[in-house]
Amino acid sequence: MSLDAVLARVDADLDAATGRLMELLRIPSISTDPAFKADCSKAADWLVRELTALGFDASARPTPGHPMVVAHGGGDGPHVLFYGHYDVQPVDPLDLWHRDPFDPAIEETPKGKVIRGRGAADDKGQLMTFVEACRAWKAETGTLPARVTIFFEGEEESGSPSLIPFLEENADELRADIALICDTGLFDPETPAIVTQLRGLLGEEIRVTGPSLDLHSGMYGGIAMNPIRALTRVLAGLHDDNGVIQVPGFYDDVAELSPELKAQWDALGFDEARFLGDVGLSGKAGEAGRSGLEMIWSRPTAEINGIWGGYTGAGFKTVLPSEAHAKVSFRLVSGQDPLKLRESFRAWVRERLPADCEVSFTDHGASPAGHMDTGHPAFEVARAALSAEWPKPAAFIGCGGSIPVAGYFKSHLGMDALLAGFGNDDDAVHSPNEKYNLSSFHRGIRAWARVLGGLSA
Amino acid sequence: MSLDAVLARVDADLDAATGRLMELLRIPSISTDPAFKADCSKAADWLVRELTALGFDASARPTPGHPMVVAHGGGDGPHVLFYGHYDVQPVDPLDLWHRDPFDPAIEETPKGKVIRGRGAADDKGQLMTFVEACRAWKAETGTLPARVTIFFEGEEESGSPSLIPFLEENADELRADIALICDTGLFDPETPAIVTQLRGLLGEEIRVTGPSLDLHSGMYGGIAMNPIRALTRVLAGLHDDNGVIQVPGFYDDVAELSPELKAQWDALGFDEARFLGDVGLSGKAGEAGRSGLEMIWSRPTAEINGIWGGYTGAGFKTVLPSEAHAKVSFRLVSGQDPLKLRESFRAWVRERLPADCEVSFTDHGASPAGHMDTGHPAFEVARAALSAEWPKPAAFIGCGGSIPVAGYFKSHLGMDALLAGFGNDDDAVHSPNEKYNLSSFHRGIRAWARVLGGLSA
Repeated sequence: MSLDAVLARVDADLDAATGRLMELLRIPSISTDPAFKADCSKAADWLVRELTALGFDASARPTPGHPMVVAHGGGDGPHVLFYGHYDVQPVDPLDLWHRDPFDPAIEETPKGKVIRGRGAADDKGQLMTFVEACRAWKAETGTLPARVTIFFEGEEESGSPSLIPFLEENADELRADIALICDTGLFDPETPAIVTQLRGLLGEEIRVTGPSLDLHSGMYGGIAMNPIRALTRVLAGLHDDNGVIQVPGFYDDVAELSPELKAQWDALGFDEARFLGDVGLSGKAGEAGRSGLEMIWSRPTAEINGIWGGYTGAGFKTVLPSEAHAKVSFRLVSGQDPLKLRESFRAWVRERLPADCEVSFTDHGASPAGHMDTGHPAFEVARAALSAEWPKPAAFIGCGGSIPVAGYFKSHLGMDALLAGFGNDDDAVHSPNEKYNLSSFHRGIRAWARVLGGLSA
Repeated sequence: MSLDAVLARVDADLDAATGRLMELLRIPSISTDPAFKADCSKAADWLVRELTALGFDASARPTPGHPMVVAHGGGDGPHVLFYGHYDVQPVDPLDLWHRDPFDPAIEETPKGKVIRGRGAADDKGQLMTFVEACRAWKAETGTLPARVTIFFEGEEESGSPSLIPFLEENADELRADIALICDTGLFDPETPAIVTQLRGLLGEEIRVTGPSLDLHSGMYGGIAMNPIRALTRVLAGLHDDNGVIQVPGFYDDVAELSPELKAQWDALGFDEARFLGDVGLSGKAGEAGRSGLEMIWSRPTAEINGIWGGYTGAGFKTVLPSEAHAKVSFRLVSGQDPLKLRESFRAWVRERLPADCEVSFTDHGASPAGHMDTGHPAFEVARAALSAEWPKPAAFIGCGGSIPVAGYFKSHLGMDALLAGFGNDDDAVHSPNEKYNLSSFHRGIRAWARVLGGLSA
């Protein structure tokens, strides 16, 4: 049977596949920083070359930002669109990395071999699992068992400004029977997962201004309003002592988890102590009385992602700054309207500022939460494929992150999406020393090979 | 009478005196930047040459940092030590200067002639008022009417690391009947001032740590403690809604202003609206019910001088950082013990942190407030001298800033200090386009000439 031969080919080719991933990881495609614009194009071109060599009709399509990679291959059978992103997060703080983030290596760890480097897990390692699965099918059978469109984005880590226009302009070309999105993780190292609900995201930047220039605290300290003081007082009120978010109306459209789903999630045996202990924490910081999985998957959040103002260098400077800043984001759940909450948040901030402080806001994106339709046959195909590769059966889970593209595929192309990925909680995505387990890479390739075979069955 | 002749000599010599100050201003003696180390020595040497030419026994004394200038002159009569500093602040942002900061010039402005250049007011222009007063006495009478020690520091703008060791090693040489410190300002353009109380300063840096690494808010948002959230909640509690500082015991040793001093200050007619309006503010942000001068001169403060944590670059990053930081300073008043308050502040921060957050502190200095003993006859001499030169009588005022050298003279040499200077609020000290009014320079020289004469009377 060809699937067995394809899987054997995957196993035999693993070292070479790892080497190809390393090449891609060496390209510092940080999409949010204009200094790396050429590197983003380089990563897109590298992917086009790889896909072309596999027989895809591949091209890098220019956008006002970074290029999109689109490739068509295979022939008969159901039509799937595979999505991943080749851009990566910035690497600061660089001094916490134990190696150059863009000089990847295989490292031995107590938990097995890992591929270390920025983007290893998010999302270059993951997107390459699908490319390598296609390679194995092609090498073994001369073709692909399905009609495959590959779509790689280069702006996922910087808000995807070009995504919606690109989907709209290329809707007919990109529309498939279902989208496969590989940018998520396992439930735990032994349990693969298919994500059926995602949180949305609302990003806001706040700039509070006070005096018209920086002031000396000897001359003005005590009499003049300090914008950092004003900002900390506003932000400190985001949560009450029980972790409940205080923006008016924030929970109005938030539904309680259904008893069925709650039972399923409880049965997963989520180890809160381990999950938190792995990152140096001992207790839950969310709404009192909620389970850990609820906090991560089905409850909305408010987080201060960055704050800055005044003198932040070495030594000391007794300044009252003229402005202070923060980046705040909200993870949203099904039912919450991002645009309505943005207005509610901004009004709440304005109301709480003292006299002599002004505020301005910068919009950093707003996407609603997503709920997947698990009725499509691909869900059972994928559940079987993943269950065959990991020790425990695959679970349908929630995801605390926001993968807006899933929602856009639905809203702009009328296409459902299936989210399956192979990351682990300790991959340090967006952090120093990001890694991807070699076992995830290997099993991930095998799982996609099974999915491709299963879809055409 | 010789004083009249001396003052006439000052007037006749003003252009030449201004030219000499320009020479000193052309030397970029930025003490905090190692690139300007040789320039600091050059400024010290220039001063030694000037003082030697005036008959002083002058020398530049090496320190581990920049040299001290010490000069002895005059003969009989009371012994005064005059203090100033020849180092200056950095000049960035350079693009906001309308001329080269080290190519000074006399400029005509709507408020009269000014000497424009880095250090014009802080403190080269001020220290030269005393040198020129000595020159006029010497030229007119062949000697000085008092015994004069001149002491110029080259590290005032960079924390004075060599000052205390130098005072200790040279205590007998430097001890005089009283120190004259010229590094302060007028009360307003028409009212000269002698500072009789200075606030102290306690500087603390806070580092709050939470998770052992930066976390992705999609994966951990809602369940994990965010150190920025913890830090803002602590700092937001520094003041209550009435501006009262909440650190336990903070006001325990703070005395109310005496009715006499309060009446004197009220009589100064401080224009709060103008003072605040000049920097874009409309209302007082200090303790409710206090006057503006109390807030600046006689009440302690707590200010957040800097805050940072998480992602602060362009764009957005949905990170829960592993740490957050702030620089906090307290301006202290007479009676407050900086070391006791440091412990109280640190304990208060620790108590208010949630579980899973740790805090560490960095000490950025602790100096108590200063209260001058106005019983020394020099105070009345100086009050008369200043009152004779400006339209309104000289006032005994407070100063919201900290001039640690005054405290060190008392603690290490047992010497009281009299602080009189001639700067204006709009001098832009530490800022682009620093200037010193030519009238301040001229009247300042005349005032010191009067003080020298008066001390020996």
